[in-house]
Amino acid sequence: MTLARELRESVYRANMALVESGLVTGTFGNVSAVDRAAGLFVIKPSGVPYGALSPTDMVPVSLETGTVLEGTLRPSSDTPTHLELYRAFDCGGIAHTHSEVATAFAQARLPIRCMGTTHADYFGSDIPVTRPMTRDEVSRDYERNTGLVIVERFGELSLDAARTPGVLVANHGPFAWGVDPFKAVEHAEMLEFLARLEWRVRTLAPDVPLPDDFLVDRHFSRKHGPGAYYGQRK
Amino acid sequence: MTLARELRESVYRANMALVESGLVTGTFGNVSAVDRAAGLFVIKPSGVPYGALSPTDMVPVSLETGTVLEGTLRPSSDTPTHLELYRAFDCGGIAHTHSEVATAFAQARLPIRCMGTTHADYFGSDIPVTRPMTRDEVSRDYERNTGLVIVERFGELSLDAARTPGVLVANHGPFAWGVDPFKAVEHAEMLEFLARLEWRVRTLAPDVPLPDDFLVDRHFSRKHGPGAYYGQRK
Amino acid sequence: MTLARELRESVYRANMALVESGLVTGTFGNVSAVDRAAGLFVIKPSGVPYGALSPTDMVPVSLETGTVLEGTLRPSSDTPTHLELYRAFDCGGIAHTHSEVATAFAQARLPIRCMGTTHADYFGSDIPVTRPMTRDEVSRDYERNTGLVIVERFGELSLDAARTPGVLVANHGPFAWGVDPFKAVEHAEMLEFLARLEWRVRTLAPDVPLPDDFLVDRHFSRKHGPGAYYGQRK
Amino acid sequence: MTLARELRESVYRANMALVESGLVTGTFGNVSAVDRAAGLFVIKPSGVPYGALSPTDMVPVSLETGTVLEGTLRPSSDTPTHLELYRAFDCGGIAHTHSEVATAFAQARLPIRCMGTTHADYFGSDIPVTRPMTRDEVSRDYERNTGLVIVERFGELSLDAARTPGVLVANHGPFAWGVDPFKAVEHAEMLEFLARLEWRVRTLAPDVPLPDDFLVDRHFSRKHGPGAYYGQRK
Repeated sequence: MTLARELRESVYRANMALVESGLVTGTFGNVSAVDRAAGLFVIKPSGVPYGALSPTDMVPVSLETGTVLEGTLRPSSDTPTHLELYRAFDCGGIAHTHSEVATAFAQARLPIRCMGTTHADYFGSDIPVTRPMTRDEVSRDYERNTGLVIVERFGELSLDAARTPGVLVANHGPFAWGVDPFKAVEHAEMLEFLARLEWRVRTLAPDVPLPDDFLVDRHFSRKHGPGAYYGQRK
Repeated sequence: MTLARELRESVYRANMALVESGLVTGTFGNVSAVDRAAGLFVIKPSGVPYGALSPTDMVPVSLETGTVLEGTLRPSSDTPTHLELYRAFDCGGIAHTHSEVATAFAQARLPIRCMGTTHADYFGSDIPVTRPMTRDEVSRDYERNTGLVIVERFGELSLDAARTPGVLVANHGPFAWGVDPFKAVEHAEMLEFLARLEWRVRTLAPDVPLPDDFLVDRHFSRKHGPGAYYGQRK
Repeated sequence: MTLARELRESVYRANMALVESGLVTGTFGNVSAVDRAAGLFVIKPSGVPYGALSPTDMVPVSLETGTVLEGTLRPSSDTPTHLELYRAFDCGGIAHTHSEVATAFAQARLPIRCMGTTHADYFGSDIPVTRPMTRDEVSRDYERNTGLVIVERFGELSLDAARTPGVLVANHGPFAWGVDPFKAVEHAEMLEFLARLEWRVRTLAPDVPLPDDFLVDRHFSRKHGPGAYYGQRK
Repeated sequence: MTLARELRESVYRANMALVESGLVTGTFGNVSAVDRAAGLFVIKPSGVPYGALSPTDMVPVSLETGTVLEGTLRPSSDTPTHLELYRAFDCGGIAHTHSEVATAFAQARLPIRCMGTTHADYFGSDIPVTRPMTRDEVSRDYERNTGLVIVERFGELSLDAARTPGVLVANHGPFAWGVDPFKAVEHAEMLEFLARLEWRVRTLAPDVPLPDDFLVDRHFSRKHGPGAYYGQRK
C-alpha cells in the first residue's frame, strides 16, 4: 500500500463514525473523501461488514477514469455516484446511508422541507429529491446516472451544494457531503434528524405555513459565511 | 446428547443473535435449522427464557414425522409451522419473531410493499400476508395449518421462496428464512427494518407511485444470482 | 424493621425491574405486593428517586385500614388505588407506570384492542379504559376512587382480572397486576408493547377487521389454564 | 477565573446532565443559571462540543448589561434570550434544547396540550407556542426578541412562569426553566416526554375531549404548593 495512506485512515475513521452514529443497518452505507491534487478519491470496499474493515481496505479510485488505482478489493458499488458528485460539486467528502426516516422520504418522493431553525442551521434550503430514473438510465451505468440525476436536480433548482449539502435519491436514500468526510457524516446525521422532525410535522400539521425566508437566512448566515457569529472565533 | 451436535450449536447461536438484534420481547420468537441429509431439524425449546438457554437445550425434530428425536424438553409450540416450511421451501434456517412493526403490519393485514432499493436488495417482491385462518384450521393442527396457509399464499402469488425469504401471518407475525439460520435471522432483521420504512411511507404519502420494476430487478440482481456485482468476488 | 422482610425485598427488586424495563420516566411508577395471610401489602415510598431506594424503604400498609404499619416514609400517593385493587381482584402484585404509549391511549380514552396473537398470549380481551372521574370523585378520596372506577369498569364488562391483568385509567395511565410483583411488571411491559402494536395498527389501517374470537381463545388457552401446551411441563 | 466559581460548576454539570438526558443532537442546546445577588448569570459557550467543555469554560454574563464579565470565550448565541427570561421570570436556571418532538411541535406551531395527569404533575397548563417573529424582530436583536416574544405570550395568556415552566418558540424549539439549572433540565426532559404523549394522542384521537380542569388542578397541587402531599415531608 503506497497510495493515499492518510486519506485511507481518514476514510476508515469516517466510516466507523457513520456506524457509531446509528445510521447504518447491515452493510448499507459508505463514506469517501477526495484528494483533488492527487487526482483520486478513497472509498469503502463493497459489501464488507463494517466490523471487518481496516484502513488498508479502503479503495483508491481515479478521479479521471473512475478505475481502482491499487489493491484487489472492489470499491463500493456506489462508487460511480461518488465520482459524479466530486466532479460536479466542490466538496471534500461524501457519505451515503439508508438511514430510516430519510429513506422513507426518498421512497415517498418528498423533499425534507426547511421548517425551522434546526434545519436552517445546517441546510439553507429544502433538501430536494431527484426524479425517478428511466429504464435506460437504470439498465446502463446505473450508479453513474444516479450521480447525474442528483446534479441535474441541483441545476434545475439552482441550488448551491455548499448551502445544501445533501439530497434524497428517489426510491433509494440520502447522500450528504461536506468539506471533509467527517463533515459529510455530520451532515448525514443531521439530515436524518431533520427528516425525523419533518416527518412529525407532517403527521401533526400538514398544512402549517412555512417559516419566513428571513428567519431561515438569519440562522444559516449566523453559522456560515462572513457574518457568522455562532461558535468561537477561529 | 448424540444427535446434531453442530447444528444445535448453530441454532443456539442464531437464537442468541436474534436476541441481540433487538427483535425479541419476552420469550417470543424462535430460530431453527435443518439437516436434510440427516432428516431432522433443530429448534429452540418452548417458553424457556433466552438467558437460560444452552446449546444442549435445542430440540431435534424429525423432518418425516415431526416428533422429538432426543431429550425431554418440548420444542417451540411453532414447530409444526417450521416443519411445513422446510417441506415446501428449499431453505436451511427459519426465524420467527413478534417484532414490533412487522407484527403491526400482520395485524393490519397489509403486505410490506417493495418501495425502494433497500427492500429490493433483500426481497425481490412485496412481503405478502396470509389470509385469516378458518375456525377449523385454528381448532385442529393450528400450528401446522399456519405453515400451510403460508405455502398456499406463495402458491397463489407464484412467489419464489428464495427471492422472497419472508412472510407475514395475518394477526400473528413474521416468519423469515435463508440458506442457514444466521441468514434467516438477518432476513428477520431486514424485514423489520423494511416494515419501519414502509410504515413511515404510508403515514407520509399513502398514494405515492410504486418504484418501477426495472429498478427493483436491478437492485435484487446486483446482489443475487449470476450477474451479481455487489460485494467481493468469492 | 420487623415486618414483611422478604416481601419488602421482593417489592424492592420488582421496582428495580420496572426501571430496567425502560417504562419509568423520572419518579413515575410504583410496584407493590400483597401478603393476604399477614393482612398487609408493601409498596414503594412516594417521590423517592429509584436510584436512592433500598429494600428497607418499602412501606408496609394494612389491607384492612390502608394505614402505614411501620416506618416514617410516606407510601406512594397511589397507595389507596392499590388497596382497592387488592380488595377486588385476586392478585399478588400490582405495577403502575406512565409508560409512553399506554399513557397516550389513556389520554385518548381508547382501549388497547386485541388485534392478534401477541396480545392474546397475555391478555384474553381488549385492555379497557375507565370512564372519566367526576368532580366529587376527584376532590375527595381521589386515589381510592381511581381504584373504584377500575373495579366498576371490570364489572360493567364482566371481565375476569386473571384473564385481563391490566387497565388504562382515563387521562392518567396503566395499572397491571399478576400472581406476584414480577408478573405484574412483566404484564406492564407487555401492555406497553401491545399499545405500541395497536398504535401502529390504528395509524396503518384504522378499519381493519378484528381477529376472530376462536384465534384469540386458542392463543390465550395454549398458554393459560388446564389445556396449556406452551412452555415446559411443570 | 475569579467569578462565580460554584455557579460555573453547577452550570457545567447541568449541561452534562442535558447530554445524558438524550435531548442533545450535535452542539444544539444550552443551560444557564443565575446569581441575582451577584447580578450575573453563567451560560455555556457557543458552538463548543459538549465533550470538550470544562467548568472554567462557562461564561459569566452581566444581568444588567448582557456583556461578558470574564474570559475570552463567546457565550451561547442564545444568551440574550436567557437574559430576557431572567429579567421577566423568577427562576434560577434555564435550559434550551432542540429535542425532537418538542421541536416538531414548535415547527407545527402547536401547543403541547395538557391531556392528563403526567402533564399536570409538572405543568399546570398547556405549554404555549409563541407567535412568528417579524422581519424587524429577526433582523435586529434577534435573540433578545426571541426572549421578548416568550414574555409577550405569557402575558397574553396570563400564565405564571412557576406553574408553566416551559415554552415553545415557533419554528425554533423549547425553552424550560426551574428554581435551579438541574430543575430546568428536568423540565426540559419532561417537556419532551409530554410532547411525545401529546403527539401520539393527536395521531390516535385528534378530537378527544380535554381532561377536566379539576383533575389537572388536583394533580398539579398534589405535587406543588401548600397542600402538596406527593413525595416525602421536607
